[in-house]
Amino acid sequence: MRIAVVGLGLIGGSLLRAFAAAGHEVTGFDVDPATRDLARAAGFRVGDSAAAAVAGTAVAVLAVPLPHLPAVLAELVDYPGLLTDVTSVKGPVRDLTEGRRFVGGHPMAGTESSGFAAADPELFTGCVWVLCVEPHGTDLDDWMVLARLYTALGARVLPITAAEHDNAVASISHVPHLLAAALAMKVGSPLNAALAAGSFRDGTRVAATRAELIAAMCGGNANEVGNELRHVINDLEALVRDLELPDPATALLPYLGRAGELRRTWPPQPGVPGRIPWPPEAPPGRPWLAAPAHTLLELGRAGGWVTSVDDVGLATMRP
Amino acid sequence: MRIAVVGLGLIGGSLLRAFAAAGHEVTGFDVDPATRDLARAAGFRVGDSAAAAVAGTAVAVLAVPLPHLPAVLAELVDYPGLLTDVTSVKGPVRDLTEGRRFVGGHPMAGTESSGFAAADPELFTGCVWVLCVEPHGTDLDDWMVLARLYTALGARVLPITAAEHDNAVASISHVPHLLAAALAMKVGSPLNAALAAGSFRDGTRVAATRAELIAAMCGGNANEVGNELRHVINDLEALVRDLELPDPATALLPYLGRAGELRRTWPPQPGVPGRIPWPPEAPPGRPWLAAPAHTLLELGRAGGWVTSVDDVGLATMRP
Repeated sequence: MRIAVVGLGLIGGSLLRAFAAAGHEVTGFDVDPATRDLARAAGFRVGDSAAAAVAGTAVAVLAVPLPHLPAVLAELVDYPGLLTDVTSVKGPVRDLTEGRRFVGGHPMAGTESSGFAAADPELFTGCVWVLCVEPHGTDLDDWMVLARLYTALGARVLPITAAEHDNAVASISHVPHLLAAALAMKVGSPLNAALAAGSFRDGTRVAATRAELIAAMCGGNANEVGNELRHVINDLEALVRDLELPDPATALLPYLGRAGELRRTWPPQPGVPGRIPWPPEAPPGRPWLAAPAHTLLELGRAGGWVTSVDDVGLATMRP
Repeated sequence: MRIAVVGLGLIGGSLLRAFAAAGHEVTGFDVDPATRDLARAAGFRVGDSAAAAVAGTAVAVLAVPLPHLPAVLAELVDYPGLLTDVTSVKGPVRDLTEGRRFVGGHPMAGTESSGFAAADPELFTGCVWVLCVEPHGTDLDDWMVLARLYTALGARVLPITAAEHDNAVASISHVPHLLAAALAMKVGSPLNAALAAGSFRDGTRVAATRAELIAAMCGGNANEVGNELRHVINDLEALVRDLELPDPATALLPYLGRAGELRRTWPPQPGVPGRIPWPPEAPPGRPWLAAPAHTLLELGRAGGWVTSVDDVGLATMRP
């Protein structure tokens, strides 16, 4: 398949490499001339504009930060192919792409590194790749095209609405970045820096991510992140009260016990394989559109994912 | 040297193995009969009581959790050798051991694993090992004995007072465990569990530590941990306010930029090697005791550490 990747940072660059390794014909573009040169030096076809890069392709992945997405979408207003993105907030993207041939996506992959130099074609192996399904807004044939592409790269494709995605990632991805930043602030003194060890190292790893990326991610999902952060603050205030009791260790124990149990049973293990026949029996006018969407959403809400797509259906897995 | 290790969990078991590998004659003890059997099966001499294990040794390391320390100290009230501990809070231990031949210690090592089965003789290589120095309370000859033992295991021995230690570890070790627990609470739903990825994995790693250990650690340092947690809550409340502004991404940027800078320049790199002559010129009555203590404390407060001890002095390193 002919595929374009616009934006060649860590995710876009890794995707360019992964698609090429899977035998697709890929073209890339990045606004940064030095990044374009890097990609060309690595042997890739790179256009001189986003429009030039996507010309003649069937799928274009927009791997640019959320603040740059409106400009790229405007530049590609006449693109007849299927558009998707990789940004970590999906509600604003759903609104931006109203009326376009677009399916929102979000690979739950990444490291604290940035840029094409850190690109890794194996980055998506085993990662969860959210592909948004809106019961009355998503063209499921387009959805299937992307699900087939990404599962072939080894990703677990999880169908969910933009709103449910944004709520979930606020708590398990965006808030963790803010907690990591608050913790990183603690090594301002030489003694603290010297004594900081494993719990600090791991708890702050993602604080080293480029500040602009964290700010765009949390800022783009500000309502949900604010709500989830308030919940965390409430929990921490309860812990402060426990610490003020005569026997703080005993007071802390139930909360710490529950948290430890949740962490030790995570990640959920693959459990029950399944199949969703595809395409469904499609009467004229495609009135089936909403029902299959709900079949997919029911899978995603249960924490399940699509493992592969073929001409007669989807192979699925649930924890 | 003949050394006893009382308490054969992760730290004590690793220490037993590390001392044995360094050629010391070691004896161990644990209150748990199954752990004693494990250690015996691994080829170690294991006593049937703490008193039996320490008999005839020059140094006894008490590697039991803080709540068990008073009972072990009472059992070893007639022990003539040098006692030390490995617990993560030093003020209460200083108070408990008033008048005893004791130097408090805390290796900044550990994993989310527990127990003798997870013991690793390499656990202390490169780790910071706090050895407490109180200007008018620490016998520095005893301090040197331990500094020589631990640096020989590859640890960086850092001299600091119990109070300064407890304040520092509250912010860079104890609070991180509580933040990890608050974050781990977020994977209660199947969707959240499925979407949680790298930032969640690393941010919650230490939440899998045994709840009793975290509770004892934070409960034993409750005042400092409560204060530091309140500072973190203040920072998070400021971030919530940033998220409510019209342009949250721009509002978040300075804080995230500063946090990222601190994290990227951590850990501090070894920089300036030095030497402290030892023993100092010692007039009768040892009036030098306080001055050398301050020399050591000045090193620790600057984030520096002792790299080795020989008969004429200490080799040191500062970041």
